[in-house]
Amino acid sequence: MIDTPRLVDQYCHGVLRTELGLGTFEAHLGPAAPPASGTTLFDTQTGFAVRRWCPPLLGLEAHCPPARYLARRRELGVAETGRRLLRAAGIGTYLVDTGAPGDLTGPAELAGAGAARAHEIVRLEPLAEQVADTSGTAESFLGNLTEAVQAAATRSVAFSSAAAPRCGLVAVPETPGRVEVRRAAGRWLARRRAGGPLDDPVLLRHLLWIAVGAGRPLQLHTGDRDPGALAGFAAATAGLGADLVLLHGSPHHRTAARLAGAFPHVYADLGAALTHTGARAADVLAEILELAPFGKLLYSSGARALPELHVVAAHAFRAALGRVLGAWVQDGAWSLPDARRVAAMLAAGNATRVYRLG
Amino acid sequence: MIDTPRLVDQYCHGVLRTELGLGTFEAHLGPAAPPASGTTLFDTQTGFAVRRWCPPLLGLEAHCPPARYLARRRELGVAETGRRLLRAAGIGTYLVDTGAPGDLTGPAELAGAGAARAHEIVRLEPLAEQVADTSGTAESFLGNLTEAVQAAATRSVAFSSAAAPRCGLVAVPETPGRVEVRRAAGRWLARRRAGGPLDDPVLLRHLLWIAVGAGRPLQLHTGDRDPGALAGFAAATAGLGADLVLLHGSPHHRTAARLAGAFPHVYADLGAALTHTGARAADVLAEILELAPFGKLLYSSGARALPELHVVAAHAFRAALGRVLGAWVQDGAWSLPDARRVAAMLAAGNATRVYRLG
Amino acid sequence: MIDTPRLVDQYCHGVLRTELGLGTFEAHLGPAAPPASGTTLFDTQTGFAVRRWCPPLLGLEAHCPPARYLARRRELGVAETGRRLLRAAGIGTYLVDTGAPGDLTGPAELAGAGAARAHEIVRLEPLAEQVADTSGTAESFLGNLTEAVQAAATRSVAFSSAAAPRCGLVAVPETPGRVEVRRAAGRWLARRRAGGPLDDPVLLRHLLWIAVGAGRPLQLHTGDRDPGALAGFAAATAGLGADLVLLHGSPHHRTAARLAGAFPHVYADLGAALTHTGARAADVLAEILELAPFGKLLYSSGARALPELHVVAAHAFRAALGRVLGAWVQDGAWSLPDARRVAAMLAAGNATRVYRLG
Repeated sequence: MIDTPRLVDQYCHGVLRTELGLGTFEAHLGPAAPPASGTTLFDTQTGFAVRRWCPPLLGLEAHCPPARYLARRRELGVAETGRRLLRAAGIGTYLVDTGAPGDLTGPAELAGAGAARAHEIVRLEPLAEQVADTSGTAESFLGNLTEAVQAAATRSVAFSSAAAPRCGLVAVPETPGRVEVRRAAGRWLARRRAGGPLDDPVLLRHLLWIAVGAGRPLQLHTGDRDPGALAGFAAATAGLGADLVLLHGSPHHRTAARLAGAFPHVYADLGAALTHTGARAADVLAEILELAPFGKLLYSSGARALPELHVVAAHAFRAALGRVLGAWVQDGAWSLPDARRVAAMLAAGNATRVYRLG
Repeated sequence: MIDTPRLVDQYCHGVLRTELGLGTFEAHLGPAAPPASGTTLFDTQTGFAVRRWCPPLLGLEAHCPPARYLARRRELGVAETGRRLLRAAGIGTYLVDTGAPGDLTGPAELAGAGAARAHEIVRLEPLAEQVADTSGTAESFLGNLTEAVQAAATRSVAFSSAAAPRCGLVAVPETPGRVEVRRAAGRWLARRRAGGPLDDPVLLRHLLWIAVGAGRPLQLHTGDRDPGALAGFAAATAGLGADLVLLHGSPHHRTAARLAGAFPHVYADLGAALTHTGARAADVLAEILELAPFGKLLYSSGARALPELHVVAAHAFRAALGRVLGAWVQDGAWSLPDARRVAAMLAAGNATRVYRLG
Repeated sequence: MIDTPRLVDQYCHGVLRTELGLGTFEAHLGPAAPPASGTTLFDTQTGFAVRRWCPPLLGLEAHCPPARYLARRRELGVAETGRRLLRAAGIGTYLVDTGAPGDLTGPAELAGAGAARAHEIVRLEPLAEQVADTSGTAESFLGNLTEAVQAAATRSVAFSSAAAPRCGLVAVPETPGRVEVRRAAGRWLARRRAGGPLDDPVLLRHLLWIAVGAGRPLQLHTGDRDPGALAGFAAATAGLGADLVLLHGSPHHRTAARLAGAFPHVYADLGAALTHTGARAADVLAEILELAPFGKLLYSSGARALPELHVVAAHAFRAALGRVLGAWVQDGAWSLPDARRVAAMLAAGNATRVYRLG
């Protein structure tokens, strides 16, 4: 009843180029943590969802054992597996965060494999670390940083950052003062070894504020924190022209949705809600649709490393949207034309507008 | 299967007396924020719920376009529209917070339009600001304030306040000391211009504590904060005779429900859960019914400015109650007499007891 | 479709040995708070669930009035009532926290009444208070405390504690230093009367860390706090060999589930989710199954004082599991063999592995 157009995946990463065994595949199903002794990450909603949707795309039965699926995957080879999976996902455009570690395909390669378009999202922290590697003094670092962010804004569709939960933004949402930033830069550069991570809270806040100034949408990972804590930063950045996109709020997706309703420039992502909740994706989607205006929600997969995750998110999203909106139409709560219109907004229309993909 | 008696709407505001266009109507559908560029507040659960329930009451088809609905509204005129909508809502008693800004009808006018009864809820902050406008010294202000609160307690059924999330109550739930209060009053009056808002945290806490002393139920807006943070204030006010009613907890309605179960004098409101979640109202209501004792939940609309919001909340509540309790009865989890009894408690019985409307 | 084996109840208490009247029975249905005036704790999901599941086990109709049920209970006598109820619960093994106050049956007596096995869980705070009662100096107290915890580890299957939300663990997750602990012990012993509770935050943290060192699973009550706040303690105890089990997270069960997915040694309890949510148990269980790996969830009742609560939790769990997993199988999201395997893990398999009950 509810058809969706080809999706814009507004936040994902590339896929691995190397063949994977059972253990290395499993490691990419969950968060960074290894499984507990006596357990496997295949026994998760993500694992079950992969076994539901992916084997049929490679000619196997749904829910076949992981070992059989991995054997088939190696038989086809990583490149052919990726092509078959990605082309079955129904994704028209990938927005690719290129700042994740690991040997992952870039936007162009992902687009080629998936027969789709792709654009780059620039992750702020690695960008700042690269600038630090080639800057001599605090003064030159700060100048180069601003230039680098502005240059990145011209070649990418958005910025992303994981700094929000660990840079004191909750307590001090405002942009830090010049003197404070210069001191922080001096301290950080002095104690930093080449390649060392940007971990100074003042510099991280400064970096977020430069990005806001560059006018591109800024995607914020909220980690396992309640995005409600970002209300102060949302208030401080209102009206400055840059949109904020809250990524991966689950299980705090309702507070993310509420924040998207409270500020015109705040958007909420549907990502982790769908990739990692499997049989529950429809219920989680329905919760997000409570408080967020429908023009403020953006589909994503958040997938990384395994094309299976790009596929699972897309299939889960389509199935969830059909079930949730279909039930509301049958119940008389929504009209069918409205449901179809909202489905198209969530699938592609909102992202096309926010990231100016038109 | 589950009939509800005429409702007591335990928290609402009056409606606007002026004709509205598409844009001014839309502005009242959501929170204070304007819609993002390229979006409309009609594309929200609230907007869809208004289009579901209200057009048929004015002789139009459900889900007709907003512009056609607004044209019909102007054709009938604001007064006749209000009468038709309110009289179809099935509300017997309105408890009206008269402290909201804007040219809204008062309790008597709302009662007349809706063919119902109405009682006043006094908002504490504007009351204190009026007292400040007419008091010379800190000393006289504080004396007049206590008198004004006590006088208000005799003419109203409850107090309301939005101060809880912004007066330091989480860190310091106790009543502030006399000297501290007198100093705060002096400071605030000295820097205040006529009509200026009460924003001193010590005075706000003092005001809440005077209201607790007056013995009337005290309704607390929890804003977008987790009402779990009010556990300290609940503990400090236990046994003093005044009930606390947590307003508008969504999406924190589960923590509000839990708090209502943990303290005999704490109650939870069903308001925003119903007015602003549309097709999801039954699911949200079911969640509130997990942890709260059924004697501690109170129907409200939280509606303001648009009689459509009074209607939507009432219809959503009745439909949600029928669906949720009906399913539990069919499943054998609840008996039908229990379900009917609980429906009547939530609709009117609990509010009648708490506000002594008998 | 989904059968579950006999359950391991991984966290419960004994039952009362005394006959109960309507009021004393009611008092054990809810949290410590008495019901509000004009209300009864029978009007809760817990009360309705007891009336649904228990009367038929004593030869009465489901949902009969509380007074009739209590009369039948007295007719049979507390011992026979307990036997009938517990033996109908389908529980194979009880893990019994013996640290709760009140005249409750111990593990052996509960096992006898329920025709099941039972093991002891040692509550840390009372253990430390007993040590303090018989230790002269701070020095000897601290030495005896370590010995007592190690001795308890040999006779019990787990430790439990309610200290986590009130010992500053969120701000300072690390083990406190020796000097700090010795000073805290001196201060606490000096101001303590015999039998006085352990309420010093430094000593409470020290106690948790001794228990972690003893290698047994440590069960943490999270009170009404968000267990997400324990992420720091989880990080600090990772890899040390002791598992952490988050108890009774409702309504924060989703954050508990997420933490169980983020750390290999963190587990989440299904307890309060089931005993106190009645007709909503299936929905709450489904939410927990979103983010937690299926090998990290443990059934419990959390029941205390009333064998009715042991029964209600077990029946609610079985019914919820059948409904939730059954729907996913019918939908094609899960395979039937997977659903049966996961049901057995949640019911008994995970607890058998974690507590080495094999």
